[in-house]
Amino acid sequence: MAEPASTLAAGPAGPAGSVGTVETQYLDLPEPVRLDCGRDLYPVRVAYEIYGTLAPRRDNVILVCHALSGDAHAAGFAKTPPQESTRDGFGATDRDGTTGKGLGWWDGMIGPGKAFDTDRFFVVSTNLLGGCRGTTGPSSTDPATGRPYGPDFPVITVADMVRTERALLSALGIERLAAVAGGSLGGMQAFEWAILFPDQVDAVVAIASTPALHPQGVAWNAIARNAIMGDPAWHGGRYYGTGRAPDAGMGVARMVGHITYLSALALDDKFGRRLQFADDIRYTITEPEFEIESYLRHQADSFVRRFDANTYLYMSRALTYFDLARQYGGGSLARAFDGVSARTLLIAFSSDWLYPPSSSREVADALRALGKPTELHVIEAPYGHDCFLLEEARQTPIIRRFLAEAGDSG
Amino acid sequence: MAEPASTLAAGPAGPAGSVGTVETQYLDLPEPVRLDCGRDLYPVRVAYEIYGTLAPRRDNVILVCHALSGDAHAAGFAKTPPQESTRDGFGATDRDGTTGKGLGWWDGMIGPGKAFDTDRFFVVSTNLLGGCRGTTGPSSTDPATGRPYGPDFPVITVADMVRTERALLSALGIERLAAVAGGSLGGMQAFEWAILFPDQVDAVVAIASTPALHPQGVAWNAIARNAIMGDPAWHGGRYYGTGRAPDAGMGVARMVGHITYLSALALDDKFGRRLQFADDIRYTITEPEFEIESYLRHQADSFVRRFDANTYLYMSRALTYFDLARQYGGGSLARAFDGVSARTLLIAFSSDWLYPPSSSREVADALRALGKPTELHVIEAPYGHDCFLLEEARQTPIIRRFLAEAGDSG
Repeated sequence: MAEPASTLAAGPAGPAGSVGTVETQYLDLPEPVRLDCGRDLYPVRVAYEIYGTLAPRRDNVILVCHALSGDAHAAGFAKTPPQESTRDGFGATDRDGTTGKGLGWWDGMIGPGKAFDTDRFFVVSTNLLGGCRGTTGPSSTDPATGRPYGPDFPVITVADMVRTERALLSALGIERLAAVAGGSLGGMQAFEWAILFPDQVDAVVAIASTPALHPQGVAWNAIARNAIMGDPAWHGGRYYGTGRAPDAGMGVARMVGHITYLSALALDDKFGRRLQFADDIRYTITEPEFEIESYLRHQADSFVRRFDANTYLYMSRALTYFDLARQYGGGSLARAFDGVSARTLLIAFSSDWLYPPSSSREVADALRALGKPTELHVIEAPYGHDCFLLEEARQTPIIRRFLAEAGDSG
Repeated sequence: MAEPASTLAAGPAGPAGSVGTVETQYLDLPEPVRLDCGRDLYPVRVAYEIYGTLAPRRDNVILVCHALSGDAHAAGFAKTPPQESTRDGFGATDRDGTTGKGLGWWDGMIGPGKAFDTDRFFVVSTNLLGGCRGTTGPSSTDPATGRPYGPDFPVITVADMVRTERALLSALGIERLAAVAGGSLGGMQAFEWAILFPDQVDAVVAIASTPALHPQGVAWNAIARNAIMGDPAWHGGRYYGTGRAPDAGMGVARMVGHITYLSALALDDKFGRRLQFADDIRYTITEPEFEIESYLRHQADSFVRRFDANTYLYMSRALTYFDLARQYGGGSLARAFDGVSARTLLIAFSSDWLYPPSSSREVADALRALGKPTELHVIEAPYGHDCFLLEEARQTPIIRRFLAEAGDSG
């Protein structure tokens, strides 16, 4: 099912450092995806973008995996927004996740001369299984009913996402990855790739990630899902076509997420206790009084316009299930990593309390105990988990050097 | 309006260390309460409990102030539950706030030989203005309409709560406090007492409190209020008598609160990533999979049965407004404390990230810079903000010694 390699080159480069204008592409997988829950999912369409040029030996491929609210549009300027879900109104520009149009969500990291250097590497970015930006997910049509799956979409895992990515790459004629890279949930996919397909991954770049979300992270995700499912407009997950959507619950979920992505210090710096209007209060329960209150509402409003609530639920659930030691090690992380052959680069941020440096250290310790080549860099930075999207300048030399060594040894 | 002192004695003591069986009492204030927002509130009923015996010179009174979800029943066994709001179903026993029946929320701290020793002190505990446990609040009848106030209840501040407490004590014939004590929002009241009525307060005991909630705390409160107000059953605050209440939103608010009251380490210890059923997952979006998910739902369910959503909104708003430097110091905390004459005891907990030790230190620094007698104790303890309700054994000797010195100098 491989397309000829000649078709696998992105368009002409735009301004220096940019991959230029890109268009999301779509591929229907030839076979069903076998899921952890036991079900086979078919059909499965995958939305993806490609940047750079595939080498004749097809040995320069980097797969970039997105986080909870991202999409395939990781770099460059979108020619057209990715296919939208059955719900209208997606597509607002937002730097931190699904962009829909405008700049890709990791544009600072992918392009000529950037961390993931498209002068050298052929970068593939997909929308995750369960997504709402072109890849099959709960808002897609269930062939059994002709209506959107909604809550009948199978519960998916990070491994299911990885198997879907594996199937896409095979369909594109790519058997081997020079690297698989991502932050947060994207890093989880990178770990899982190295375990599921050890002989097909040369290097892992896992940023602000973890081998298993800590219990507080599980709790935040549970709260977000409860907020969505507690909204009557969620309607048991069958809100498509009702003209309503659980916007209130999604808004609260996004607010919770947003605060966990930032550090307390970042909130101090950015907002402090500044009031909306001059230096006095207006005695209102319903309206924002503090700048941060107004900001949270804005974040919620823009998110619900661009993201599907059911996709949020499925992604959030997959995040909480992910637990390498449980899945592959009988409780031991070292045992889970035993078969890994990839070199691993771990980057964590000092102020990230959702995916704290200690989680990356746990991975580093397990890999080193096994004698596997591993680097861990903890970057001192104040912006919390969002650093993986913001601290491009400090990640770039670390990643470029790591990938250059990959080239030397590969 | 003072009642004779002879009526101001609690019933006979029960088991050793307990104040015994107590009954919540109610007093209608003789005058309107003038509020910060400019309105006068009348009538105002205050629910209160008393423990110990008022000294003939009335110089042994300690006012205990509760936190966001507490009530007047701070110690002993409730003879009957406090008056309930217009919504049915309040009154479930819950150790961490409004108990309704059973043991008081700070029973470990108040009683014979305890931190607030009722063999020596006469302890008064009131339900806060805006409450739902007997003191006038949004679920009380608005005399202008004959219906519950709902959103027409005036927006209140911590200072308004303190003025209401002041009015209650005056009506009871008490002019002076040996101490005012509380944790969290209760500590805020203690600070505000010392500033508003500097010649009537001998000592402040402020535990796990702050001179102003940090921006992340403002954000958590905004999220909780948005969850409640985004629930259609909130109905603009006019849900009384509709047979519905914003239980879903309140549940989410409580979940957020609960996680912020605990530390990440406490969640690790208490729940880890333990699954509900054996050691495998069931692939469900809607049902709890992890023990912590089930626990959060239980917390939410029990809270919505015992607490009024509008009271939550008003208390939460007052918490966020509270800012001593803004209110009294033109931005300077030291200036705000300039007139304080009380000795101050501050206790903070190392793992409390909602009211962190740094907040108490800020108060200590400001008071010391003014040469005012101040003690700060940071207790190393792993349970987060909830420590103020849990770490009785380690707080007790600190508080007893501090109050004994008060007696020596007073």
